[in-house]
Amino acid sequence: KLYRIAVYGGDGIGADVTREALRLLNAVAQRHAFQLVLTELDWGIDHYRRTGVVVPENFLEILRPHDAILLGAVGWPAELPDHATLAPLVRIRQAFDQYACVRPAWLLPGVPCVLTGKSAGDIDLVVIRENSEGEYVDQGGWLHRGTDREVAIQTAVHSRRGVARILRYAFELARKRKQKLTMATKSNAQRYAYVLWDNLLDEIAPEYPDVASERQHCDALLMNLVRWPERFDVIVASNLFGDLLTDLAGQLAGGLGLAPSTNTNPERNFPSMFEPVHGSAPDIAGKGIANPTAAILSAAMMLEHLGEVAAARMIEQSIASTLAAGHRTRDLGGTLSTIEFTDRVLEHL
Amino acid sequence: KLYRIAVYGGDGIGADVTREALRLLNAVAQRHAFQLVLTELDWGIDHYRRTGVVVPENFLEILRPHDAILLGAVGWPAELPDHATLAPLVRIRQAFDQYACVRPAWLLPGVPCVLTGKSAGDIDLVVIRENSEGEYVDQGGWLHRGTDREVAIQTAVHSRRGVARILRYAFELARKRKQKLTMATKSNAQRYAYVLWDNLLDEIAPEYPDVASERQHCDALLMNLVRWPERFDVIVASNLFGDLLTDLAGQLAGGLGLAPSTNTNPERNFPSMFEPVHGSAPDIAGKGIANPTAAILSAAMMLEHLGEVAAARMIEQSIASTLAAGHRTRDLGGTLSTIEFTDRVLEHL
Ligand SMILES: CC(C)[C@H](C(=O)O)[C@@H](O)C(=O)O
Ligand SMILES: CC(C)[C@H](C(=O)O)[C@@H](O)C(=O)O
Repeated sequence: KLYRIAVYGGDGIGADVTREALRLLNAVAQRHAFQLVLTELDWGIDHYRRTGVVVPENFLEILRPHDAILLGAVGWPAELPDHATLAPLVRIRQAFDQYACVRPAWLLPGVPCVLTGKSAGDIDLVVIRENSEGEYVDQGGWLHRGTDREVAIQTAVHSRRGVARILRYAFELARKRKQKLTMATKSNAQRYAYVLWDNLLDEIAPEYPDVASERQHCDALLMNLVRWPERFDVIVASNLFGDLLTDLAGQLAGGLGLAPSTNTNPERNFPSMFEPVHGSAPDIAGKGIANPTAAILSAAMMLEHLGEVAAARMIEQSIASTLAAGHRTRDLGGTLSTIEFTDRVLEHL
Repeated sequence: KLYRIAVYGGDGIGADVTREALRLLNAVAQRHAFQLVLTELDWGIDHYRRTGVVVPENFLEILRPHDAILLGAVGWPAELPDHATLAPLVRIRQAFDQYACVRPAWLLPGVPCVLTGKSAGDIDLVVIRENSEGEYVDQGGWLHRGTDREVAIQTAVHSRRGVARILRYAFELARKRKQKLTMATKSNAQRYAYVLWDNLLDEIAPEYPDVASERQHCDALLMNLVRWPERFDVIVASNLFGDLLTDLAGQLAGGLGLAPSTNTNPERNFPSMFEPVHGSAPDIAGKGIANPTAAILSAAMMLEHLGEVAAARMIEQSIASTLAAGHRTRDLGGTLSTIEFTDRVLEHL
């Protein structure tokens, strides 16, 4: 078996952690007798410094023929406004119709939790984030720009087709897990967007009588996540709410150093993309201390997507035993460098 | 001195906790020699059952001549869609141009915190929520309603005037507190709304050279709130982000049973409104176990707004010493009923 992977390390710690993920991938590829053909892409802020653009104009065409995209992190706010460095990320998600963003939050043994009295097993949930439309279509405009009467208009677009497919994706996952689904809404304040979400939940829930479903307003949901994380199984949310919920859920499960994600096009008409939930972390970039776990677990999610399930499990178990054995990078209160931690993970394979 | 207060207890626990707040208000009015003239309004779900509407058509005119509005909680989702029961709340905020929503989160002695290792004093922040526009203008519409091609459009409107005035309000407060201001943004994904916010922060920050200001994307800000709550002083956010941040911050400071809020029209052209951050909590309504603290502290904020600062401090201190003495309602792990807890607070006056 041979897989063509586009590797877009990106900015800041993105490149560092992606390098470690590749070490793991190469190690398991050998043992599981598959081959990875890597296209390493030097896009990001350095590319911008050399060429004036963060990615080449035809970047989507370059990515397109690959079986998957492994991304590190993008963004370098000191030099470019965020929306300039980050635009490629959102464009990949939308152009390749990677409409399901899957972000598990799983508190592993050996990982300290910010919440009082929670330990491994108490947090084991997955957030399914709508990834193709909603608040991220970035439509809008200006009135009276540059005057006292200036107004910014920002429009979100939620389609029946888009919301229905993400709800079904989440219900299918809940069916395979603990048969519980919570949908984020805010229909008490947004009577178009979230009334559509509410209506579709009411319509689709009866297709899954084996799954207990409910909705919570996003404000209450954020609060309940810190109160009772153990009550959640699958959470499904719009693009914006999914963004907010996954950062919080990731933090509760030990921090973004550990949180992987998939941006998947379930129909497989386009490559899916795998990336840590964290960003480029300019404050620790280049210091060799970033936690590579999120990137490594994202690589494992990629292998699972490619059908290399045994290899994916091998990586996940190795991460779990490495952490359980007390090996930790600084974000978790340890002293290991990025490379040293990966060395330990390789030993635990 | 005489103050005319509109009392809108509302639904569920709203009426119960408001009753307790009135007991406190009457007690301090006596000691501080001012008089409260109350207009008690029987609006909400019961009003709907009797008359077919949650509030009378002219409800804004009824409220208008008062010096302040004391609100309990609104909403009864089992019987009416949320946006029907809640509409009056958002309409009051917007019609009376109560553009600054002030929500302190202060971890008091004796209050358990969900975060590991945090104790009284570690959380002492105030969220200033833009309360008049943004994501809450509830503009939008439908395309192809009821068909497969159905699309819901939801539009947010942020004005230079609206954002500038809330930023200045927050900077003024930061100046009186710990000289630190954090603005929530999401300009990496919404290039109209939050670029306006970013630009205005850059423009206005130099007017307050004594205040250290920064911006954080709302996803990172939620995460940092659970990581490092002690790093925050004043947080300023849009209507939607403010809604989300205040539920989380309230939870970190002991739960919504304790979280008060002000919806203020700083120019005082209209009455301001004071209400707990919590909702009507149908699950515990009528059981007599709701925590009245948030309502009582909201009443204290009202007194401060009316100029009765000593009376406000008296209530706050009494709450603090009651909690420090270990008296607790069930939400905090105690056994006291709503009325019993208020009895303790009255004794500590
Ligand atoms: C970088 C940013 C545009 C992105 C998002 O908002 O989706 C990030 O926060 C994420 O969650 O992947
Ligand atoms: C009830 C609801 C409309 C309201 C809001 O979203 O503003 C509430 O959550 C709040 O925070 O006061």
